[in-house]
Amino acid sequence: MDATEFRRRGKEMVDLIADYLENIEQRPVYPNVEPGYLRSLIPQEAPEEPDTYEDVVKDIERVIMPGVTHWHSPYFYAYFPTASSFPAMLADMLSGAIGCIGFSWAASPACTELETVMMDWLGKMLKLPEEFIAGTHGQGGGVIQGTASEATLVALLAARSRTVRIILANDPQRPETDITSKLVAYASDQAHCSVERAGMIGGVRMKKIPTKQSNKYAVHGETFLKMIQEDKAAGLIPFYVRTEHTTFFERTKHTHPILRTEHTPSILCNAEQIWMHIDAAYAGSSFICPEFRPLLNGIEFADSFNFNPHKWLLVNFDCSTMWVRDRSDLIGAFKMDPLYLKHDHQESGLITDYRHWQIPLGRRFRSLKMWFVFRMYGLKGLQDYIRKGSNEMNEVLLKRINNGKKIHLVPCQLSGQFVLRFAICARTTESRHVREAWRIISQLAEEVMQELPH
Amino acid sequence: MDATEFRRRGKEMVDLIADYLENIEQRPVYPNVEPGYLRSLIPQEAPEEPDTYEDVVKDIERVIMPGVTHWHSPYFYAYFPTASSFPAMLADMLSGAIGCIGFSWAASPACTELETVMMDWLGKMLKLPEEFIAGTHGQGGGVIQGTASEATLVALLAARSRTVRIILANDPQRPETDITSKLVAYASDQAHCSVERAGMIGGVRMKKIPTKQSNKYAVHGETFLKMIQEDKAAGLIPFYVRTEHTTFFERTKHTHPILRTEHTPSILCNAEQIWMHIDAAYAGSSFICPEFRPLLNGIEFADSFNFNPHKWLLVNFDCSTMWVRDRSDLIGAFKMDPLYLKHDHQESGLITDYRHWQIPLGRRFRSLKMWFVFRMYGLKGLQDYIRKGSNEMNEVLLKRINNGKKIHLVPCQLSGQFVLRFAICARTTESRHVREAWRIISQLAEEVMQELPH
Repeated sequence: MDATEFRRRGKEMVDLIADYLENIEQRPVYPNVEPGYLRSLIPQEAPEEPDTYEDVVKDIERVIMPGVTHWHSPYFYAYFPTASSFPAMLADMLSGAIGCIGFSWAASPACTELETVMMDWLGKMLKLPEEFIAGTHGQGGGVIQGTASEATLVALLAARSRTVRIILANDPQRPETDITSKLVAYASDQAHCSVERAGMIGGVRMKKIPTKQSNKYAVHGETFLKMIQEDKAAGLIPFYVRTEHTTFFERTKHTHPILRTEHTPSILCNAEQIWMHIDAAYAGSSFICPEFRPLLNGIEFADSFNFNPHKWLLVNFDCSTMWVRDRSDLIGAFKMDPLYLKHDHQESGLITDYRHWQIPLGRRFRSLKMWFVFRMYGLKGLQDYIRKGSNEMNEVLLKRINNGKKIHLVPCQLSGQFVLRFAICARTTESRHVREAWRIISQLAEEVMQELPH
Repeated sequence: MDATEFRRRGKEMVDLIADYLENIEQRPVYPNVEPGYLRSLIPQEAPEEPDTYEDVVKDIERVIMPGVTHWHSPYFYAYFPTASSFPAMLADMLSGAIGCIGFSWAASPACTELETVMMDWLGKMLKLPEEFIAGTHGQGGGVIQGTASEATLVALLAARSRTVRIILANDPQRPETDITSKLVAYASDQAHCSVERAGMIGGVRMKKIPTKQSNKYAVHGETFLKMIQEDKAAGLIPFYVRTEHTTFFERTKHTHPILRTEHTPSILCNAEQIWMHIDAAYAGSSFICPEFRPLLNGIEFADSFNFNPHKWLLVNFDCSTMWVRDRSDLIGAFKMDPLYLKHDHQESGLITDYRHWQIPLGRRFRSLKMWFVFRMYGLKGLQDYIRKGSNEMNEVLLKRINNGKKIHLVPCQLSGQFVLRFAICARTTESRHVREAWRIISQLAEEVMQELPH
């Protein structure tokens, strides 16, 4: 296929994609196939002579679509959202065409530099502490990882190497294997399976911090502190805690300050500083809205932070954004500089070689899709998408509720948002009244959402 | 941007891509920018209100292209090739639109099943031993990794967990940290930096096997055997060797059989079986040609094998294909089965959950681009691409050489290839005659290549 044919086939593919996404609602969201369905539909071996492109395209409907779970169907409520937007798809097309492998600055300066700046843009949208932003006097910066699992692992490896380095500085004779065999990492017992997996891969103990329903499954500071003290008494070395968005407020509000208070004086000299990695894979996108940003308070105690724009910020998979407070901690865990990857600017301190920030060596030009999405939506457009409803919509809803005369509410303004306040006021209000009020509000909201454009 | 606008913008992007690739030769292959060039070209923060799409597209030339190292320019001779083909780009567009996250069979059966079958197709093209093919009675199978670095790491982690498991089976009281602290992995002193990095990540000793120029930088079996014996005598546990394409013939021909001969009787009970991972990242694609396939002999001794179709087999990055002899070894290193990822067919033995085969949890629908490329080129087309020359071209060249009357050669047929034999026959032939002959052959070959279509 030459460029001339690609012009034709590419445009057909654009229409095929638009058709697919415009009509996705008509397809069954979950496929009706049995394991092994596909093998019988295609040949046992690759063809000797080329197939025609028409045959390949026909087979998309015959072979592929019957087995697809349609993640972008409006009826898909499983697992978690995965982002999809047209600007991101256009950027990915361009990325595929440029097709550079951005492991170092020199391997394609635009690939590295756009990533650094897009990570700064996004970091500013989230109002991250300045230390995490590359274009400041801090030591931090951001990087695109493939998945949150990788970010969890990368942070754990960085923490492991930092801890070993600090201990060896004070006790150079201690065998490294003795140190690593004593390391202990922590995560909530509600944490994602990838956390335990990171511990397995990194070859370190991973302990689960027990949580309770009564505490909304958040880790309680005292529980965690007790574990740390017991582990230290038993000769272990606490070095890493990875917290999830559902629970980390509790931890950052209560736990970490406790840790700091108790341990700060001896953090570095005793080499017991615990790396705190905050993972807000799903919820993180919402922090671009001022009304949700307080949920990220505590980030100032973290060593690294990660969330997935590829879940809820309209940037197609994969794009898992990670920031670190001190890039040298991260780089220290991985840095390898063979001659064939060296280049002029390497030691200038001005540039970033992202291969030191991740598990794989190669990397795609993924920041293009952040750039396209951020520009085509604008911050306001992204905030509207998170809110999935406008101030106007809320105003109309309130009007209808109050016009109905059955219940009465007043609004307030909160960080630029028109908010409906529901206060339980009367001495005579019972549960059944609240349920009835909720029924009315839901029904009217349903009507408003159907009538007004999102 | 809605689907209607995407139809228009997508087609414009197809033309932009075709224009870029058709005229790439005119662009300077290496950018003339200084570190930090990009930050000054774009705003410090994301726009509040959306930019126009026209502005974004204008900025591709203004902001991005000046900083791109053009990996697909015909003047690009740095690093290694990275594959690019129009069928792969079309498939990637489709993959982006389907946008499923194929971590389990149920998460999108087509995504998993096409990958398994494509890995079988490719395995058959390479004539891999049957144990590596999923659709047989063997225990093996293939998986797409992002990069060869990840394959090296995944194999090392699988080897580590297999070794620990075997030792613990015989000596359940031995602390796991005692075992891992004694593990030793090996690679040639010529191996890629990602190998040493895999050792760092996995927290195991990595020893370099010395090579010599006189031995073409191949590992010598006796050298390796001696290291193993010394390490065992010192109480260490050899468990993994990772070999590269430039050197592994020597190893598979000499080293591994030696290992087998010496150790086979005690492999399992002494738990000293060494996992052999063969990495042919770049050269591996050539093994689809019968005349290069002998270079893969020895694969029958390997536990895992990996190469990068994204380097030399026209499948755009990322697509690093990895096969294992025994999938349970791989899965054993990673398996985590939380409730929210469980599905009906999970324990049926019929299906594959690829999340157990890799470091990240999520994964894209990458097998689509293998499918498009294999079908649009056919095996013959792919072989022609590797050879970059046809039988016809060789025949024409031979005719011109012999018509020139200055030198005389005869051809032969080798595995379907028309080969020009160059035999040094006369008693009177000196170096200068051979150099003169080479000059004539090169010059005529140049002419033929310019005249005939590739």
